[in-house]
Amino acid sequence: MKKIRLFTPGPCAVPEDVLVEMARPFEHHRTPWFKDFMKQCQTKLKEVLQTKNEVLIITGSGTAAAEGAIIGCNPPGSRMLTIESGKFGQRWGEIAEQFGIDVIRHEIEWGTAIDPQVIADYLKKDPKITTVMLTHSETSTATLCDLEAIGKITNAAGKLLLADCITSAGALPLKPDDWGVDVVITGAQKALMIPPGLGFASLSERAWEVVRNNKGQHAYYLNLIKAYKKGLENDTPFTPAHIMIRGLNKALDMMLEEGMENVWKRVATMAAAARAAGEAIGCTVFSKRPSDSVTAFNTPAGIKVPDIRKGLKERFGIQSAGGQEHLKGKILRLGHMGYVDEMDTVLAIAALEQVLYKLGHKFELGSGVTAAQKVLAERM
Amino acid sequence: MKKIRLFTPGPCAVPEDVLVEMARPFEHHRTPWFKDFMKQCQTKLKEVLQTKNEVLIITGSGTAAAEGAIIGCNPPGSRMLTIESGKFGQRWGEIAEQFGIDVIRHEIEWGTAIDPQVIADYLKKDPKITTVMLTHSETSTATLCDLEAIGKITNAAGKLLLADCITSAGALPLKPDDWGVDVVITGAQKALMIPPGLGFASLSERAWEVVRNNKGQHAYYLNLIKAYKKGLENDTPFTPAHIMIRGLNKALDMMLEEGMENVWKRVATMAAAARAAGEAIGCTVFSKRPSDSVTAFNTPAGIKVPDIRKGLKERFGIQSAGGQEHLKGKILRLGHMGYVDEMDTVLAIAALEQVLYKLGHKFELGSGVTAAQKVLAERM
Repeated sequence: MKKIRLFTPGPCAVPEDVLVEMARPFEHHRTPWFKDFMKQCQTKLKEVLQTKNEVLIITGSGTAAAEGAIIGCNPPGSRMLTIESGKFGQRWGEIAEQFGIDVIRHEIEWGTAIDPQVIADYLKKDPKITTVMLTHSETSTATLCDLEAIGKITNAAGKLLLADCITSAGALPLKPDDWGVDVVITGAQKALMIPPGLGFASLSERAWEVVRNNKGQHAYYLNLIKAYKKGLENDTPFTPAHIMIRGLNKALDMMLEEGMENVWKRVATMAAAARAAGEAIGCTVFSKRPSDSVTAFNTPAGIKVPDIRKGLKERFGIQSAGGQEHLKGKILRLGHMGYVDEMDTVLAIAALEQVLYKLGHKFELGSGVTAAQKVLAERM
Repeated sequence: MKKIRLFTPGPCAVPEDVLVEMARPFEHHRTPWFKDFMKQCQTKLKEVLQTKNEVLIITGSGTAAAEGAIIGCNPPGSRMLTIESGKFGQRWGEIAEQFGIDVIRHEIEWGTAIDPQVIADYLKKDPKITTVMLTHSETSTATLCDLEAIGKITNAAGKLLLADCITSAGALPLKPDDWGVDVVITGAQKALMIPPGLGFASLSERAWEVVRNNKGQHAYYLNLIKAYKKGLENDTPFTPAHIMIRGLNKALDMMLEEGMENVWKRVATMAAAARAAGEAIGCTVFSKRPSDSVTAFNTPAGIKVPDIRKGLKERFGIQSAGGQEHLKGKILRLGHMGYVDEMDTVLAIAALEQVLYKLGHKFELGSGVTAAQKVLAERM
């Protein structure tokens, strides 16, 4: 028996119902049939992302959606501050540079979250900054920043706030309209429970004003205005990956049936259980401000991350993630997004115990699952 | 009973085996599991597209792939000539303008193909032209240009030739390496028999030299160099729509099992049958130089295209296309790409006869299918 168990922080496990939905016969997409799916998805996406703003659906990755937003929200004369606390934060700075946008790239130590005051200081010191972009939940370090506090600061200063919510939207509490987040970017293959292939962007009225008045260069395929106009007609400017939109419609149903507060609670419970288990078995938590959508563990001295990942995969079919860039070989990451529940987390911890035991790590067998069980009992 | 029968010139019918393949459980994509699919697809795509050049796979539409190629192949100082003979030809000129590329947009009457001599004259008259882009099979008018003859001209002049082969690649004879086509662009949802979501670009060594030496602006998400480098490792620069690549792998198998010469022959036979049938029932062929991948019919006087399309769809589940822009309401289009064979064409013609009859068109019932049958008998 060989099971596939996706615990990677994207792509995440997809419900069988979604896969089957995508395999059903389809019609042409310039039809009421497809427009109905688009309309349904629009309504449901707003509920899942907790926003009243339209949510643009782009055939491409989350990076594609972010690129469209970065180009659109930075007209000539803009200055963007990017907060880079990991691999994905870096990408937004790179995109800005590629398109000749005046960008201040503020790097911080990986595994830490930006102190909102630092952003406040930047905005005070440099009034030319028009836009701030950061990653809400940095997947590469499993770290969450305080987006709500940051939104208060950027709003008070009248600046645009662009947030990469690729591993937060649909998994963690996120209230862009209340928090003053102007652009929410996300992707398909994380908490939204569908395979990769779609990116999403939702813009506030203030952000749309900037995009509409942008006299500089616009993207073509990633042109947000085009996507917006077509979106209002429940259509897309270019041929969409319509089977994925159909799958999305199904996945959103499942999320809304559970209720967003309940989804957030489930994810938080899984993460708390994983952290408690990790500490119990000598796999301490790497992040100084852990995100609940993915947990990064420091691995025990003398035990190699690739060996752990290999053991998890070969023996139990569990796909995990290691570290990226300079964290390669230093951390092990397990995701809590997608079609996984609390018992899947217990399973993953049990498997991790088995693998560590085989690799010679000294710890009390069962202490991880016991710690996890205690967290679950308290919270469920 | 309600069947769905896709005769639109994209998206086209997809084999059930491909849909089922895409619904199977999946692993993470940064793994040997996915790299093996990529490697297989690469080998098979080269065979299907009849090229020795790498074929880049981009998560996005054919337009996305074209945009990447247009930006990459037009470094500062370039001048691009676009031949615009329909809706898709226009798009390439629009993209060039959007990115500030010096472009000469040569429009011709819709439904006609460019005379290769016109291109030769342009290149002679204006040595600053570095690049020529055109649409091999213009879907909006069902018209084919003589790409082989044009390739001879651009090659002799030492110019780059970019060809939108979105409705030719995999359906019609296309030999980019022999013909001197520098860039072949195509999309998933036409002859390649998978749902929409992927775009493809294949570049000659000469084109790569231009892209690599391009000191101007590059795209980020649609950056061909990034895609190329990752492609050599059987990977992608951004999260790919991996279930579609898996479906593609299956569809390519089916095409190669049939053999490309046989696929081309089948498509040509279906088109010839459709044209003969159309002429027999008073639906003459619109194009002055018809493509075999899609047929555009002039409809009988007094019979409205939307009524025909509605009848085809409501009674027989057949999805067809009308005209675009100024051809709206003037032509009816039926595709011959994807998972359709000669008997599907007979079925579509029989249905068309029934609908025209109901709408009051005077013609000899059965003459369309008879004409089609005769063509099939001669060719099969």
